[in-house]
Amino acid sequence: MDVLPVGIIRVFTTEDQKILHAHGNKIEKLYNLGCINRCITDQPKGIYDVESEHEAIPKIVELAKEMEEKHAVDGIAISCAADPGLELVRQAVSIPVVGAGSCAAHMAKTISNKIGVLTIANEVPAPMIEIMGDSLVSWRKPEDVNNTADLLKEEAKEKSMSSAKELINDGAEIIVFACTGYVTIGFGEMIEDQLGIPVIDPVEAEGNMLSFILRGE
Amino acid sequence: MDVLPVGIIRVFTTEDQKILHAHGNKIEKLYNLGCINRCITDQPKGIYDVESEHEAIPKIVELAKEMEEKHAVDGIAISCAADPGLELVRQAVSIPVVGAGSCAAHMAKTISNKIGVLTIANEVPAPMIEIMGDSLVSWRKPEDVNNTADLLKEEAKEKSMSSAKELINDGAEIIVFACTGYVTIGFGEMIEDQLGIPVIDPVEAEGNMLSFILRGE
Repeated sequence: MDVLPVGIIRVFTTEDQKILHAHGNKIEKLYNLGCINRCITDQPKGIYDVESEHEAIPKIVELAKEMEEKHAVDGIAISCAADPGLELVRQAVSIPVVGAGSCAAHMAKTISNKIGVLTIANEVPAPMIEIMGDSLVSWRKPEDVNNTADLLKEEAKEKSMSSAKELINDGAEIIVFACTGYVTIGFGEMIEDQLGIPVIDPVEAEGNMLSFILRGE
Repeated sequence: MDVLPVGIIRVFTTEDQKILHAHGNKIEKLYNLGCINRCITDQPKGIYDVESEHEAIPKIVELAKEMEEKHAVDGIAISCAADPGLELVRQAVSIPVVGAGSCAAHMAKTISNKIGVLTIANEVPAPMIEIMGDSLVSWRKPEDVNNTADLLKEEAKEKSMSSAKELINDGAEIIVFACTGYVTIGFGEMIEDQLGIPVIDPVEAEGNMLSFILRGE
């Protein structure tokens, strides 16, 4: 089976190669895709408000065009739960483009109408809310977790686990991560092991959809 | 990698083992799942109107319960684009349950907002319409194709190809099959080869979702 090249767009600035490749490495391991990993420039804090999103979107579009032209990728993932620039990127390139948030939300809907969302922000990304509709039964943000960096602190796992339990108490039958930072700390496996509830990981979701649309598997 | 057992429910009656196993065989080949294939009783024509759907649903629920109890399957697919009985089956068993139609519709939405549907009926299944919303740009039924059996006639492929071309003219950027009969005649590969447009096959979609939710891949 050929290893198809795909582009993974990280929506913040990093020179740490391990962090840059984290999503791509997971996708390569699961789906036999060859990931070209790139981050946007001059935004070390990534996207955290309307202004930073507006600043990021043209850079995301340019990265996507570069990936199609120079690296001849067969598909692109915007690897962020907020799907920044998804429609503009689709207009700019001729290959399939997916966003982590919409992939995760659609996959959750496919198997459940009682979805709980774990986020790090004070809201769930708008595209995810629109997709899940009434199936979004609850969302929670762990105490003292306000950005991706906070998830790397030791106490974050315990606080995130409390939030996951609250989601189950609220009636959730499946948990979706509205931040790819939960993937970085391996929190999906922890929830499945300790709480026995399925988790939709947005990085796995985008990898799965690229694999499905490019190869039918 | 373990071969996980899953149940595939066919919503019509057949004693032809080749037909009974057609969807399961495709899923086994693509996703390393072990399929237990069963059909409902006393409905050789399957589901074709409201009455036949009402008649079928209790049988689908019973089959699902039997699959969970006797065959210890880890997940179930209702292998029909109309998702008959999906919510009732979910209430009756404790394992993940997917429907071919909702899987296909959600996967199409994940990668496009310009979706064309190829059906054999005079309407698109209601759950698919609800999921796709404004992203459903057009749907078509090939001339003289009114049921699954008609798809097996030689002229059906040519007429279906005409309908697929019409969907593209209508603005569709991806085609979803609203009948698993198109899978049986291998029509997805024909469209992709001849028209160069991606196709969402509901049988692949349900297999993909079962694999994703049960194994994260």
